[in-house]
Order: sequence, then C-alpha cells, then structure tokens
Amino acid sequence: MSLVHARSTVDYHNSLCAGKLIVSHLLLIQECFNSPYGTSFFSMYAERIPGESTQVLSEAAKENQVYLVGGSIPEEDGGKLYNSCTVFGPDGDLILKHRKIHLFDIDVPGKIRFQESETLSPGNSLSMFETPFCKVGVGICYDMRFAELAQLYSRQDCQLLVYPGAFNMTTGPAHWELLQRARALDNQVYVATASPARDETASYVAWGHSTVVNPWGEVISKAGAEEAVIYADIDLQYLDDIRQQIPITTQRRNDLYAVTQAQEGSR
Amino acid sequence: MSLVHARSTVDYHNSLCAGKLIVSHLLLIQECFNSPYGTSFFSMYAERIPGESTQVLSEAAKENQVYLVGGSIPEEDGGKLYNSCTVFGPDGDLILKHRKIHLFDIDVPGKIRFQESETLSPGNSLSMFETPFCKVGVGICYDMRFAELAQLYSRQDCQLLVYPGAFNMTTGPAHWELLQRARALDNQVYVATASPARDETASYVAWGHSTVVNPWGEVISKAGAEEAVIYADIDLQYLDDIRQQIPITTQRRNDLYAVTQAQEGSR
Repeated sequence: MSLVHARSTVDYHNSLCAGKLIVSHLLLIQECFNSPYGTSFFSMYAERIPGESTQVLSEAAKENQVYLVGGSIPEEDGGKLYNSCTVFGPDGDLILKHRKIHLFDIDVPGKIRFQESETLSPGNSLSMFETPFCKVGVGICYDMRFAELAQLYSRQDCQLLVYPGAFNMTTGPAHWELLQRARALDNQVYVATASPARDETASYVAWGHSTVVNPWGEVISKAGAEEAVIYADIDLQYLDDIRQQIPITTQRRNDLYAVTQAQEGSR
Repeated sequence: MSLVHARSTVDYHNSLCAGKLIVSHLLLIQECFNSPYGTSFFSMYAERIPGESTQVLSEAAKENQVYLVGGSIPEEDGGKLYNSCTVFGPDGDLILKHRKIHLFDIDVPGKIRFQESETLSPGNSLSMFETPFCKVGVGICYDMRFAELAQLYSRQDCQLLVYPGAFNMTTGPAHWELLQRARALDNQVYVATASPARDETASYVAWGHSTVVNPWGEVISKAGAEEAVIYADIDLQYLDDIRQQIPITTQRRNDLYAVTQAQEGSR
C-alpha cells in the first residue's frame, strides 16, 4: 500500500517520482483545508456534509480511484458546528465522517491560547474504516494527544492511524513529532499526519511538517514548513516483523489492565 | 523535591554541586546492579529479599535519610527467580518491592535476542509508594514499553515514574529516550530512568544514558554512556502549570474510553 500525503492543496494524481510510477492508494490532507484555522472563521466557512467541499473530495477520490482522507472542514449540523473529517472510497462514496472528539482548548501564557469549544461541539464516536490494504483509524489533531484513542484503534486491528492536524509554533516543535512517534511505537502501527504549510502572515501559524512514522517509531517521510507532498509505503510485512521481534502486542498483561471502550449508549 | 539519579555504583551522599549544597530526597540506581545482565547470571547472583544487597540499600537510605529506589536484583523466592526492585525509606525500612511485570523477551534477528522468561517469573502487581513530596510509580526496564502501566500510575496520582533499566545497543538508540518522553508527555508526569554505564566488553552491552524527562516531554537531565550521576528537580508547581496549560488530564473522554486495572483476585 502506498500513501500519498498531501498538504495545502488537494493533490490527487498518480505521480511519476524518481522515474517510477507511484500508484497512490490513500491520500491524506490537512485539518480545516477549506478555511483559515480560527474560532472566528469556523461559522463563516462551515458547510453541511454533503456540501461543496466534500463534493470536491468525492469527485477527486473517484477520478483517481483512491481512498481520500479529506482533512477536515467546519461542519454545520442541527445548529451546531463540528470539526469533521470525511473519508471517501475509490467509488466516490462517503464511507466515514469523524467529528473531532477532543476539542483544542489550551492556554500557554505568552505563547498560545485557543479554545475550540467556544464555537465547536465535540464528536462522540471513534472512527475506523476498512480498505483492501489495511484498517485505518482516524483522529483530528488534538485527538492525537489522547493515547487511549490510538490504543483502541490498534486493539481493533487498525494498522495505520491518520491525523489531519494543524499544530502551531509552540506545540509543533515540542510535541508534533513526539506524539506521532509515541503512538506508532506504543501500538506498533504506522502513523501519518498532514499539516497546512506554514504561513507566517496567518492569525494561526501552523508548524507544518506533515509526517509518516513506521511501527519502529522512525520518521520515514517528513515535509518541511513549506507546501509539499510527501509519500510513504505502508509495509504490512514490516509491521508484522516488528511485532514478531518485540512482541508487545502479545505480551500485554491483560490480567492486570485493559484499555476499554465505553458501551454505545452508556453516555 | 530533588532527585539524585545514580548509575553503576550505589551513590548516596549530599552533593556539593556548583557551590550549592544539594540535599537529595530520592535516589535511583540501575537494573541488576548486583550482577551482570544475562539469563545465565540471574540464578548465580540471585538473593533472597531481605538479603545482602538489599541490606546495603537499607543502610544507605537510612544513613543519608533518603528514599532509595534500589534498581533491581535477581530475587529468589519459593524456587522461582524474579527481577525485583526494592524501595527503602529514610528510616531504612523496605517500603515496596516491585517484581518486573513484563519480562524482556525479544528477538531482533542479527541484532539481539534475549529471553528473560527462560529463567525469570513475572511479577503480578503494580507498585506505587508515597513520599512527603509526591507519589511515585515503579517499573523495571521493559515495563516502560507498556503504556497502560504508566497510565494507571498517573491516574492514581503518581507524579513521578521511575524505571531502572538496561536497554541495549539496538533498542537503546531507537527507543530509550522516546519511550520516556512519551510516558512523560502523555501523562504529564516526570519520568526518571537509570541505566548501567556502557561496558563494551560485557556480554550484554547497555546503552547507558540515564535520563530525567519533565511533564512537557523535555529531557532535563541526561547522562552519557560513561559512569555518571545526574540530578534533576521534580518541580510539582511546573507539573501543575503544564496541566493547566494543556489540560488533557481533565479533557479525557471518560464517556468513550477508560484504562482500567483488573481487580485483585480476578486473575
């Protein structure tokens, strides 16, 4: 399985890369690709799903016969706003909608204050989808800080976790790569993120650095701060090899602890 | 609270450091400090607890009025061997014994094969202790790969996690620091590790690099490969500040997931 990992614009094409035709199977773009990132912009750019932006995603997926993890847009539904990621299959059908579960509410004095919950409502569901290659778990940006989500995805056989995101100039250098490597190593899965390119003139300056990490915890592909498309192979044989070599997936002490998902309806 | 973090020998003293008297409150030494690390050595160096080595630890703790996390020794009990960490209080009393829960059984072809389970039995309990400064959670080396242990410790109010360890020349450069930073950042706690110094002539060559990481995921003190003592302050105000700034400890979606400890006796 190959992963094409795009930023800043919807890139969707088979790419002639170093003289070799790369047929992309899954593409990932960044959080809030249809709007600037900021609480004052969410209502201004909010759309229903399906709507204009998701129609573009659907057509792109179908035209290129790929799975497209369409970053996120501000979604309007029933008078509420959500930060929502849509996933389309190669036939252009919507196969999943993930609403960001953990809203980005932080306050680092003198550095950054951001309160998504001022305008957004949180999603209430985990989001996984099957492909012919592997099962994929979806989170959005701040969702990545919560290890439990990745643990549940990997325990339910996801081998690739994708997080469209938009870390900033404070949390980006400190935590963006560390969180991805932690999720990958602890669960022995691939992790892919997509970030907007850095725009120093924006009200919210994104860190950039879309990244793919392998199950050994190594960064195998990484963009800079500028607009770029990065590529990585998702090698399931390698994943299996790592799990054989350091078999934490079978060594967990299920008699002592567990990561559990709450029952539907128990909320 | 100050942490004195010793390697390779039992260092226990108040240290005059850069002209300033550092009164140590907690000391940590490395895994298997009384024996070479290797399955063929465990039975040769195994002791009962209490026994000769733990008596030395007890006296050191009392003489210096410190909490001493005494790395580990191979422990013999009831015809079985364990990899056991003892913790002594300032009065010299044994306050905790942690038997390594996750035995180190890995096989990375051409790099390293090690099977602790060939000679050791695993422990079956989590291990925390209270000090006047903060609550401390204890794991040994490979225990650090299992995120659930750190999650349970931190959910039960441990603010410092200590892992005597002995990573090797394969897993050390790849994962030693990453795992510590992951545990610290994901749980917003301090993490301290102690490793043997590197001995290239040993059958098992340790990576070294005893480390302390703060709740922001930053390495704040780190040894090289050679024998060394490192120091760090455990600043609980800083820990609280981080938890205010990025409040993941209160933002977790307990309605969607949980990390749970199995009931005693349910095994």
